[in-house]
Amino acid sequence: MKPFVHEIRVRWADCDPAKIVYTGNIPMFALEAIEAWWEAHLGADWYRMNIDRDIGTPFVHLSVDFRSPVTPRHLLECSVAPLRIGESSIRFRVIGRQDGTVCFEGEFVEVFVAAQAHQKIPVPAEFRDSLEALVTAAQQGS
Amino acid sequence: MKPFVHEIRVRWADCDPAKIVYTGNIPMFALEAIEAWWEAHLGADWYRMNIDRDIGTPFVHLSVDFRSPVTPRHLLECSVAPLRIGESSIRFRVIGRQDGTVCFEGEFVEVFVAAQAHQKIPVPAEFRDSLEALVTAAQQGS
Amino acid sequence: MKPFVHEIRVRWADCDPAKIVYTGNIPMFALEAIEAWWEAHLGADWYRMNIDRDIGTPFVHLSVDFRSPVTPRHLLECSVAPLRIGESSIRFRVIGRQDGTVCFEGEFVEVFVAAQAHQKIPVPAEFRDSLEALVTAAQQGS
Amino acid sequence: MKPFVHEIRVRWADCDPAKIVYTGNIPMFALEAIEAWWEAHLGADWYRMNIDRDIGTPFVHLSVDFRSPVTPRHLLECSVAPLRIGESSIRFRVIGRQDGTVCFEGEFVEVFVAAQAHQKIPVPAEFRDSLEALVTAAQQGS
Repeated sequence: MKPFVHEIRVRWADCDPAKIVYTGNIPMFALEAIEAWWEAHLGADWYRMNIDRDIGTPFVHLSVDFRSPVTPRHLLECSVAPLRIGESSIRFRVIGRQDGTVCFEGEFVEVFVAAQAHQKIPVPAEFRDSLEALVTAAQQGS
Repeated sequence: MKPFVHEIRVRWADCDPAKIVYTGNIPMFALEAIEAWWEAHLGADWYRMNIDRDIGTPFVHLSVDFRSPVTPRHLLECSVAPLRIGESSIRFRVIGRQDGTVCFEGEFVEVFVAAQAHQKIPVPAEFRDSLEALVTAAQQGS
Repeated sequence: MKPFVHEIRVRWADCDPAKIVYTGNIPMFALEAIEAWWEAHLGADWYRMNIDRDIGTPFVHLSVDFRSPVTPRHLLECSVAPLRIGESSIRFRVIGRQDGTVCFEGEFVEVFVAAQAHQKIPVPAEFRDSLEALVTAAQQGS
Repeated sequence: MKPFVHEIRVRWADCDPAKIVYTGNIPMFALEAIEAWWEAHLGADWYRMNIDRDIGTPFVHLSVDFRSPVTPRHLLECSVAPLRIGESSIRFRVIGRQDGTVCFEGEFVEVFVAAQAHQKIPVPAEFRDSLEALVTAAQQGS
């Protein structure tokens, strides 16, 4: 299986006076890529999941290594792969590339919560089978 | 020595529909706190360091664990401590608290570069003694 | 009466490769100043007003003239004055200055709504007298 | 001529606790649409124009009327039309629609500057003919 890739058009607004994307915007890009992954694979963006289904997915961890600057000169291709499903969590790896160069890579962990109650819940039954299949497929693809 | 604490007034604009600060804004807050630390201890904000002295300090790593939601109901108190000085890098720990509760904690690594050339450089002589003293003081204070 | 002034520490993160604050961040600063005005004069930030009292104040208009670039070299002093109270709206003028120079000026109109229902409502009785007095005071001060 | 339309996928991150896009993000969306217009019609994004050609295009004015909330439930279609070319300026109208409803409309004025010198310049010769033709076409199309 080919990894899921979310493309971002980096812009002037994203850059700082060093003429590269500001550090703080990189986690934002990776989160956008993860949300695009949700939408592509589960048909669920965070807004609808939260508001229409009362399923929240707050992050409990993120880490990013910055390898090379990101600029508007090339598309930013963010590959997203689910690494592991826990009792009530999911861990992703995101790798951002421009023109074939790895710019950053990171890991991101979300937990499932009842959105209104803000209480941790198990991975919802409606998602578990799909998520486990996606993790398996990602492992075989890597 | 008391740890350096940078206070942030969290706002409506920082929050998402879950009524808490959006995940992607938390690294932004931590970076703001680190820049405030620079300004308070070395008299140098990133803008002046970069543009007036040609010293850049891009980040090569950040990791954050999210412990409890951040909201506008309390001040966000970000304590910043330098953990370690390397040949050309500095590592910080940032802990964000609201009303006595730890909301997030993370580590952040900057490297020094010649800003225009974007080439890694050793920790500038003008900063090294001060930075080492600050690391020692932070270790004794913790 | 002296005008209300909200101070903002402009940062590296706010600037674009032209080494000045990115255009799109200026309305953000003005909105922050207006929210600070609310908090200082009515004891109500937008988060608490919305969530605790079900009073929303969405904007229906904003206009900004940019006079001079904003940079991190000086504090940004945003003066905020209420210009006019309508049946269900309030209009503000915001002027941003750095080191005595006007950097931008703009007008911003909010309407009151029942937050959950998203229905326009008259200016809430609990605010009307105070708001009218503040408009009068601002007119006499200018 | 059909108006130029730039599509934006609105996200969870763009929304505030009122479950709609935060006011301050709307000018950001409109600016993104204007930059996309530049790129589509003149082959020039703001980063390359500024850094590679020393042509800056800072904004001197923007105004926005907010007609209807923007949410992640629909694509945001931003139509961009150049209204008028001055001696050294260009004025745009941007209209944002979701699912056929006008959500906001605004006007935005950029001036041309020598980027490094930050000095106003006439509309560059390399752009003037194209820009005038685009204004004429937009007028005939509207």
